[in-house]
Amino acid sequence: MRGWYFLRCNRLQWSKRRLQPLYQPTRGVAWKGRAQLSNVEKLVQDFRNEVARILHFEEAMYLMEWDLRTGAPKRGVPLRAEAIGTLSDEVFRAKTSPRMESYLNRLSDPDVFATLDSVTAGTVRELKRQFDRDKAIPADRKKAFVMLTSEAQSVWEEAKETSDFELFRPYLERIVDMQLEFIDYWGFENDPYDTLLHHFEPGLTVAELDPIFRNLRQETVRLLQDIVASGVRPEVGPLLQDFPIWQQRELSTELLLYMGFDFSAGRLDTTVHPFMSSINRYDARVTTMYVKNDLRSSVFSTIHEGGHALYEQGIADELIGTPLCTGTSMGMHESQSRFYENMIGRSMEFWETKYPSLLERFPTLSGMSLEAFYAAINEVQPSLVRIDADEVTYNLHIMIRYEIEKALINRSVKVAELPLVWGEKMQDYLGVVPPNDALGVLQDVHWSGGDFGYFPSYTLGNIYAAQIREALHRDIPDYMSEVLQGHLLGIKNWLNDKVHRFGKLLGPREILQQVTGQGIDSGALVRYLNDKYRPLYHI
Amino acid sequence: MRGWYFLRCNRLQWSKRRLQPLYQPTRGVAWKGRAQLSNVEKLVQDFRNEVARILHFEEAMYLMEWDLRTGAPKRGVPLRAEAIGTLSDEVFRAKTSPRMESYLNRLSDPDVFATLDSVTAGTVRELKRQFDRDKAIPADRKKAFVMLTSEAQSVWEEAKETSDFELFRPYLERIVDMQLEFIDYWGFENDPYDTLLHHFEPGLTVAELDPIFRNLRQETVRLLQDIVASGVRPEVGPLLQDFPIWQQRELSTELLLYMGFDFSAGRLDTTVHPFMSSINRYDARVTTMYVKNDLRSSVFSTIHEGGHALYEQGIADELIGTPLCTGTSMGMHESQSRFYENMIGRSMEFWETKYPSLLERFPTLSGMSLEAFYAAINEVQPSLVRIDADEVTYNLHIMIRYEIEKALINRSVKVAELPLVWGEKMQDYLGVVPPNDALGVLQDVHWSGGDFGYFPSYTLGNIYAAQIREALHRDIPDYMSEVLQGHLLGIKNWLNDKVHRFGKLLGPREILQQVTGQGIDSGALVRYLNDKYRPLYHI
Repeated sequence: MRGWYFLRCNRLQWSKRRLQPLYQPTRGVAWKGRAQLSNVEKLVQDFRNEVARILHFEEAMYLMEWDLRTGAPKRGVPLRAEAIGTLSDEVFRAKTSPRMESYLNRLSDPDVFATLDSVTAGTVRELKRQFDRDKAIPADRKKAFVMLTSEAQSVWEEAKETSDFELFRPYLERIVDMQLEFIDYWGFENDPYDTLLHHFEPGLTVAELDPIFRNLRQETVRLLQDIVASGVRPEVGPLLQDFPIWQQRELSTELLLYMGFDFSAGRLDTTVHPFMSSINRYDARVTTMYVKNDLRSSVFSTIHEGGHALYEQGIADELIGTPLCTGTSMGMHESQSRFYENMIGRSMEFWETKYPSLLERFPTLSGMSLEAFYAAINEVQPSLVRIDADEVTYNLHIMIRYEIEKALINRSVKVAELPLVWGEKMQDYLGVVPPNDALGVLQDVHWSGGDFGYFPSYTLGNIYAAQIREALHRDIPDYMSEVLQGHLLGIKNWLNDKVHRFGKLLGPREILQQVTGQGIDSGALVRYLNDKYRPLYHI
Repeated sequence: MRGWYFLRCNRLQWSKRRLQPLYQPTRGVAWKGRAQLSNVEKLVQDFRNEVARILHFEEAMYLMEWDLRTGAPKRGVPLRAEAIGTLSDEVFRAKTSPRMESYLNRLSDPDVFATLDSVTAGTVRELKRQFDRDKAIPADRKKAFVMLTSEAQSVWEEAKETSDFELFRPYLERIVDMQLEFIDYWGFENDPYDTLLHHFEPGLTVAELDPIFRNLRQETVRLLQDIVASGVRPEVGPLLQDFPIWQQRELSTELLLYMGFDFSAGRLDTTVHPFMSSINRYDARVTTMYVKNDLRSSVFSTIHEGGHALYEQGIADELIGTPLCTGTSMGMHESQSRFYENMIGRSMEFWETKYPSLLERFPTLSGMSLEAFYAAINEVQPSLVRIDADEVTYNLHIMIRYEIEKALINRSVKVAELPLVWGEKMQDYLGVVPPNDALGVLQDVHWSGGDFGYFPSYTLGNIYAAQIREALHRDIPDYMSEVLQGHLLGIKNWLNDKVHRFGKLLGPREILQQVTGQGIDSGALVRYLNDKYRPLYHI
């Protein structure tokens, strides 16, 4: 009977009931009365309140997008999209407003900055970085880019469906031109591509990345050739039987609990393209996809997204209400998901513990030995599509994209030549050639959205993961025996302590240096891959 | 593998992809280039864009609140509440901003107003009403009220738990005082309580409502006394067996489909206090509660909230993007939920159609005849708690609250006297007296939130529903035979056409006048109750 009451009235009451937080953004009396505050303290307080206000808008956007991908009624989507557009517009305006500019200028003053607590200082640094990047581009040019990429994405979708690169080519050419134009606005020291890398992996340069990737590529290609030559082919058939969705759902819940996921600060839902979204510090939402006749889909996307979620659930409370309250970089975030998905979730120890309960749930697997299961989930197979690639070949897909992006930005290759270049590199690295562009150069959405410099993050994630894994092994030599004992809290706590809690307060390199005592080095990943796959393939 | 990609990048791409809507709020070029627009057209366009922007923030709030009540992780709630607070703050600011004031003043100019299309004119009227109401109260007094009621609500919760009215009394006294203070700001013609009624039922006055309620009360009390005297007691036991939740869920879905609910523009979820929330015009979300050992809970809250949802799903597209795109008043909205819940959902015809499938789902009911089931779901029983009350006694609970509110506002009764007054009126109208204040004067949340003038809407809903039902009967004499034929589209389409589509473009009285040719009249409800319950109780 109280339905309408809740619909219309509690809405108002809600905001009333939350008065303190409601007014904090404008009044902000956190730790002492304004009267006793120094000017700097007042400035910091107003700044922090404005930042919190912006983050509240972002929280609303995140929830709206999560909702769109987990069951929002389809006829409501266009209106929802408009609402999201308005909020993102508001957020962009606020982050680039004269008011924000004045906050950042006053707080960046060396004398003032020196007096700031580390969280506020980090917040100023991060927002300044975003402000400078956004402001560097004239509004009309940014708008032109937004329009171009929004159109380019629909064109890309069509081009991919019809496998017609020519349709997409002119758009990609204009996107590359605008990337170069923007790079001029942003400026660069050595390689123009560095500027794009910085957006996703602060401080990373081509000069540093090239040798790292080259070593990894050579070693991976060698390993892959040996694997192919071995003639060993794991039997994956048993994983392609019927696995009731409700049982897969229960399994995904069991796996997240096993990893240490806190369900009172997150949830698990179903979607088409699995993702994790951290709505706020205590609301990390994992999504997964259940495929009736392929058990691997939900198991490994759940573990992967669960790894992202553990990162967000491990960030220190002190960072709440600041832009530092999230993973430090794309690469570091991916390192956590890959570590859990591949190095834990595809390890023998993990399934020595979990395989019995898997057999209980799915008697259809009873014919399959643990060893056969382990081999099947670690099948290595050169393939055409990145998102279907295994642990060994995945990085080769990334390098192809990285090298092509660099070549485009340095004008050493033309967009029109991409299908050809793509085929050649696929042949060189993976020994397979796409029969058409849909399965080749058109397979990824990234370029149509103008996200150049993003791809390397995926492989950096694998590299970081392997380096962090070796550090973990140094600190807790028998950490894998914990896996055997059926809980992963020691590993999670170690990662919380060494990686997660810092959020964006530390950059990815600082964290890597603290944890491993080294810089970025693909050696650990090469060792890991060889140690794991050579025995598996009897080579 | 693309998880993080979706988490961080598609977020940006989303807002890009939605450029047109994203920039409409600021650019707004809807039907012709600004160059060709007259000044008034430009003004209207900017106004409509600003309104749309505000409604987008509200859409975000609605979703956040729906999410809080349907499964948001509990540890994330405090942060979510802060975010909702910030958005509601923003909405309030925008609706009372100098910018909004200037729009409203310029568009309210008679010469300009006369040229406006009806939707824009209605939008101006509605926002002016809200603006005047909000602006009448000095900011510091409003803030004081918000703080008082937010505190009062937690105190009320404790007072209810411990059944300690004295604990709540001083807060209620201050709330009443502030209500009177606000009424002075708002002003009133005859009865100060009129001002409060207007907030929920525009144009309604005590002078008009008193005789309507008096007639209903006298007739209802007479009917109730006859029912009690009849000694007839339906057997409800069979409805209190075990009914598996998943089967109840399927039943709720079946019932909504049967009513004509559009699942492509809405959804059904689980909650503790059922409500319906219209996130946007094509996203109406019903929630219900499944009680394992009481089938009535989910069945009737689903039908009730479904009635609210059909209203929102029936509003004309032309009203999208305006504050007119929702039910015209609390009372009219409640009339739709009550019509479906009681007049359809508790009718013999409805279950003549649905009882067979109910028996299939729940063989435990097989011992119960259709007639016994019909009697059980229409059990009349004087009780202490409003939200548990049946169709006959419910309005008596409302009138007690209405009369007490009027007396408080007219200073003819003191807050301290309420427990006594409450007991007396319960004795007079229902013949039962609460053993304690928790089951008496402390049972409802409304007063602690300062929502005076709200309660009458519930009974107005029943009155409107009965009047609309007689009009429906005039237009489609055999509409109940449609129920027998197993679909309700004719009824839904008639309501869409006569009531729903107008949204707030017409006021509740205008709609009632159009549909019934009359004003508010409790005669129809009295006839309906007598015709239904006298035979049921053999009187």
